[in-house]
Amino acid sequence: MKTTNLELTPEAMLQMGESAVKAVVDHIINLPSAPRSNLENSAEIVRSLREPSPEKGTDFESLLYFFMNKVIPVSINTPHPAYLGYIPGGGLYPSAIADFLGAVTNRFTGAWFAAPAAARLEANVLEWFAQWMGYPESARGILTSGGSLANFSGVVAARKHLLGDDISRGILYASNQTHHSVMKVAFLAGIPERNIRLLDVDKNFRAIPDEFEKAIKKDKKNGMKPFFLVGNAGTTNTGAVDPLSELADIATKYGLWYHIDAAYGGFFNICEEGKKILRGLERSDSIVLDPHKGLFVPYGSGSLLVKDGELLRRAHILTAEYLQDHTTPEGEFNASEYSPELSRSYRGLRVWLPLKLFGVKAFRENLAEKLHLTKWMYQRFLEEPGFECVAVPDLSVIAFRYHPQKGNIDTFNRQLLEKIVKSQKLFLSSTLLDGEFVIRVCILSFRTHQPEIEEAFEIIKNSAKKLVLEGGRS
Amino acid sequence: MKTTNLELTPEAMLQMGESAVKAVVDHIINLPSAPRSNLENSAEIVRSLREPSPEKGTDFESLLYFFMNKVIPVSINTPHPAYLGYIPGGGLYPSAIADFLGAVTNRFTGAWFAAPAAARLEANVLEWFAQWMGYPESARGILTSGGSLANFSGVVAARKHLLGDDISRGILYASNQTHHSVMKVAFLAGIPERNIRLLDVDKNFRAIPDEFEKAIKKDKKNGMKPFFLVGNAGTTNTGAVDPLSELADIATKYGLWYHIDAAYGGFFNICEEGKKILRGLERSDSIVLDPHKGLFVPYGSGSLLVKDGELLRRAHILTAEYLQDHTTPEGEFNASEYSPELSRSYRGLRVWLPLKLFGVKAFRENLAEKLHLTKWMYQRFLEEPGFECVAVPDLSVIAFRYHPQKGNIDTFNRQLLEKIVKSQKLFLSSTLLDGEFVIRVCILSFRTHQPEIEEAFEIIKNSAKKLVLEGGRS
Repeated sequence: MKTTNLELTPEAMLQMGESAVKAVVDHIINLPSAPRSNLENSAEIVRSLREPSPEKGTDFESLLYFFMNKVIPVSINTPHPAYLGYIPGGGLYPSAIADFLGAVTNRFTGAWFAAPAAARLEANVLEWFAQWMGYPESARGILTSGGSLANFSGVVAARKHLLGDDISRGILYASNQTHHSVMKVAFLAGIPERNIRLLDVDKNFRAIPDEFEKAIKKDKKNGMKPFFLVGNAGTTNTGAVDPLSELADIATKYGLWYHIDAAYGGFFNICEEGKKILRGLERSDSIVLDPHKGLFVPYGSGSLLVKDGELLRRAHILTAEYLQDHTTPEGEFNASEYSPELSRSYRGLRVWLPLKLFGVKAFRENLAEKLHLTKWMYQRFLEEPGFECVAVPDLSVIAFRYHPQKGNIDTFNRQLLEKIVKSQKLFLSSTLLDGEFVIRVCILSFRTHQPEIEEAFEIIKNSAKKLVLEGGRS
Repeated sequence: MKTTNLELTPEAMLQMGESAVKAVVDHIINLPSAPRSNLENSAEIVRSLREPSPEKGTDFESLLYFFMNKVIPVSINTPHPAYLGYIPGGGLYPSAIADFLGAVTNRFTGAWFAAPAAARLEANVLEWFAQWMGYPESARGILTSGGSLANFSGVVAARKHLLGDDISRGILYASNQTHHSVMKVAFLAGIPERNIRLLDVDKNFRAIPDEFEKAIKKDKKNGMKPFFLVGNAGTTNTGAVDPLSELADIATKYGLWYHIDAAYGGFFNICEEGKKILRGLERSDSIVLDPHKGLFVPYGSGSLLVKDGELLRRAHILTAEYLQDHTTPEGEFNASEYSPELSRSYRGLRVWLPLKLFGVKAFRENLAEKLHLTKWMYQRFLEEPGFECVAVPDLSVIAFRYHPQKGNIDTFNRQLLEKIVKSQKLFLSSTLLDGEFVIRVCILSFRTHQPEIEEAFEIIKNSAKKLVLEGGRS
């Protein structure tokens, strides 16, 4: 029997590692001069990348060159300091090193017994999160791939606790500014679409507690089972923070599970400025936090905290004979008993390593800086003729429109966004608010500082001026 | 405003990368002489690792040393060539490089428009999987964190298609050897526990089609809605492959969604020997495959294929205003429309890179080798007095017991497993079959070759002999 070898020689591994490190450090060094987005002819380029299953191998250097020079550049440059679109996804270098270390050592971290020390580093991270949010020691958390699955496990924990098997009458309440993933995961958890109540917001796009109370009363009267109340600690559209304490009062009064989607905004709670804005966060039953947003780690890191950790466990535990060999000591826990997953990557290290390396203080200061930059830019928008901000920013999103003297406002702003993005000097994205086209700036990259924000404002201002002079385009 | 900096200097990044590469290559070089598991005093060690949130930073070299020398060794050595426990999770070095490259470049791959070329590499991988499984071009797939979430999206797609919102009477059928994650994710998807039918198996632990037909008929008569039929292409307990074609006949006859959990066994379909065993795989509506099992990539890679890809999309699509800026060309797709996730890590690269680097042929040969090694070891067990294999291995799991002349068989085998594991020369795990304690050997590491299997057999044989001489322990 022929023995095949997928193990490389030490020399080959060292060489591959060295080449990869050089390539990505070059990539980071060259970020400032790289286009902010490059999607020209992407459909054609992508078509040329289709290929049949490769029977034979290819040398590493060619594949690395191909990836870094032919694949990566065809994209929105999300790690760029001038990437202010959607919600920036960070990309701390030490997290990438952590992914590398975790994948090579390849321990099984889905259960405590197989790699208890590695599991403990993950538990440390989750315990820090719980403390930062003002949760008690009863809290338990999980690290997920992102906010969607974190929201999912929140819905499932509440559903199990408050509805049992009778889920068809369970009702979920959220403002109409809630991230669509909350509704999506509710459907995935078996909550019918007709049971979702998306409620009107105030002029700053924050939830109106009265609307929640009215809706809950009405549903109760109709024999439905209100069970899940969503608060937002930073909406995606405008960064709005709902009145978290008032929503807590209502959830308590009517016996609903109070879930806060703080995927984007929650980590601002570690700085003083943010803590004031997020008052009431600690009164929730569960919180979603995305380390790939507020802690700047690369895409692939969400988390869920549940105040009464046992309720999270009851919704997810199911064990098997082939896992019979081991037990878990008091105070430690098996991630798989609290989450939908069993085998999965070692997610804890990509959060643990940068927190340990830089210390929490550096993150606190960086987040405070983001709030400051937002205030600075917001002030500029207020002072600049023609611009309107559609809401007072609670955190680090500014949603704005330019009002041209003539022509359709929506059309003008669509053209303005297109002009900005095509310049490749700045990346922004858009949304619809009350049916109107609005441009968004979201300041959350650890690479974005005062100079980038000043430049971004100049680009926006000058692009609007130019577009006015051009009379808009047909 | 103070500007904090979480960006490292190029020199620091190069140095960190170099140190990390050296450390893990050393780790791999030293694997053969490392303990196969080391869990002595793990509870105490882990307790000492608890610490409060670190306000200040620590230098990288100290953290790297701590991780590689204090954290990783306290574990079951899952990447070791003599790790034959549970189902080995591989750990190909190029996949770790891919994780590193993906995390630094940090593109958003949840939607096509943001990084279309990167998304295409993922789509290539999924199209290769579909071809390997004999699926048509209508198939679509997703890469997940592991088998559990892949099974979840299979259940959700079937539920949406066949039950709509009326899920309380939907019934799921599976053999009692089915992985517990299938039941777990069905609960998460809102299927009540009372609606799960776990059916008896034959003497080789394979599903009995007649049992399925009887159960379906009975449920239909009682007004229930049979909707989901699970076949196993390699159970975790014994590696049993259900009669896949006969189950397909039943699913077709009664209009059920036919889902095959091939998380462990599916990739054996790329080698001739495996293809024969897995006949009927292509008749399913959905298949779960774990690249972190049969393709040897590190933990964190599962996948789901759905034959009629549009049904997967319908169960997962829900979009939002802030994603309005872009469209997807024909033949390309947004992962987030087919999966519960939106933001997530760039999963495709860790599968794409090793397949391109080594070529599929190397994987085909390595998988054929695993089947051969299993046959070789099974033959040795048959020839060795005292040993009984509880089933004929279909793939690469051997489940065995030693029958001592006197004393309790279960107790003896528990002690035998403990003796083997404590020797730190070999790692095996156990299960319960028909209530009896059984030891398992699972041969699926790319690092396991003939010498490791010969040594493993000698360790098992000699440990049993010694234990007999010792008269078992009290």
